[in-house]
Amino acid sequence: MPEKEKATIIVFSSDIDKVFAALTIATGALSMNMDVTLFFTFWGLNVIRKENTTKKKIGIIRKLFSKFNKGGAHNLKLSKFNMGGIGTHLMKNIMKKVNMNDTQTMLKTAKTMGAKIVACNTTLEFMGISKNDLINEVEKTSGVATYIADAKKSKINLFI
Amino acid sequence: MPEKEKATIIVFSSDIDKVFAALTIATGALSMNMDVTLFFTFWGLNVIRKENTTKKKIGIIRKLFSKFNKGGAHNLKLSKFNMGGIGTHLMKNIMKKVNMNDTQTMLKTAKTMGAKIVACNTTLEFMGISKNDLINEVEKTSGVATYIADAKKSKINLFI
Amino acid sequence: MPEKEKATIIVFSSDIDKVFAALTIATGALSMNMDVTLFFTFWGLNVIRKENTTKKKIGIIRKLFSKFNKGGAHNLKLSKFNMGGIGTHLMKNIMKKVNMNDTQTMLKTAKTMGAKIVACNTTLEFMGISKNDLINEVEKTSGVATYIADAKKSKINLFI
Repeated sequence: MPEKEKATIIVFSSDIDKVFAALTIATGALSMNMDVTLFFTFWGLNVIRKENTTKKKIGIIRKLFSKFNKGGAHNLKLSKFNMGGIGTHLMKNIMKKVNMNDTQTMLKTAKTMGAKIVACNTTLEFMGISKNDLINEVEKTSGVATYIADAKKSKINLFI
Repeated sequence: MPEKEKATIIVFSSDIDKVFAALTIATGALSMNMDVTLFFTFWGLNVIRKENTTKKKIGIIRKLFSKFNKGGAHNLKLSKFNMGGIGTHLMKNIMKKVNMNDTQTMLKTAKTMGAKIVACNTTLEFMGISKNDLINEVEKTSGVATYIADAKKSKINLFI
Repeated sequence: MPEKEKATIIVFSSDIDKVFAALTIATGALSMNMDVTLFFTFWGLNVIRKENTTKKKIGIIRKLFSKFNKGGAHNLKLSKFNMGGIGTHLMKNIMKKVNMNDTQTMLKTAKTMGAKIVACNTTLEFMGISKNDLINEVEKTSGVATYIADAKKSKINLFI
């Protein structure tokens, strides 16, 4: 049996609109029988982080930084017109109106369809997030070498 | 005759600087005899939307949202240093000074050179934009499956 | 000897977090024996610009614009939570804490490992930056045709 065609998407952003785009492409590729890896890094780690997490023992600086950088797929914001939350709220309402799934549901769907959900371990440490704080859908944490190995065999590579 | 090499670019952003980059790459690839698809989605839909459009019958929420989200290639703004329009104004002036085309002209040029201009139908509905509101350069609207089919045959895939 | 596999990364952004991601991917690919081209364009040109530069003779408009758009790899800012410099300052501190290199060091490392550092000549002129203002690591300036020629032979193409 020939190997499946691959798509590898780096999810760098935690903007809800960009995460939505990444997950739409991922589920689209999965439904066309491709192998999909979603490599979450930097702000994107917030997408795959549990809502309420016990912090790793981190210094005061990272603690301060993480104050501004909240986890959980339903804390994501719009990249534009957030306007203190109003724009994001409007967007979520529109998504319901047009019967779209929210990003949490889309992530679970992608996982069920076979997506590999990977967390970047370099930025995990940097963000002061422990592996225990990641949602169950995450298959593994890995570094840039694993990403490169996947990406160079992929038909579709995106940085979102 | 062998098939042409392909480039597929997702234009997610409506920031004038990013749209400029996308169109420069597109016309560059076209002039090197590649097949180019520009897939406009989300904020990028503003680039291919007529200036003055009669709104679809949409609910109050989407109406409110679309207040902040104006169409038309010359309503685009800089991703940085917009400063209430001053930065964008400066940029447009510099573009004229160095004899660059504006994004509207570039889009027409790309079309003339053979670019396929596609609008994402999922986000069209989401943004409350009707097909009649799209400029004539748009060839068709389509979904993620069409994007994936194009992208996986492309030598160059970008998300901008 | 077979040709090496290639990765071509457009560095459009000057956000420190995105530049960090681009350079991490670049050095990762280099250490896995790939050929890497970093194509710096638009805001990304700030990354490869000397700190203190004598301005090209440019008009008043570009002079004004360049006031807001400072060069030098240690003037880069976070894409989020910059908060007048506080967020960026925190990030740099965390990078030291977890023994990460700063972006300047990473750029030098990439160069030493064989990365081709290219500056986009269209946007150089646009930004009013002269070739003499670029750091020594820059191999050449070139246009979109050179980029396309590299990119279409690359296994990994990213726009960051």
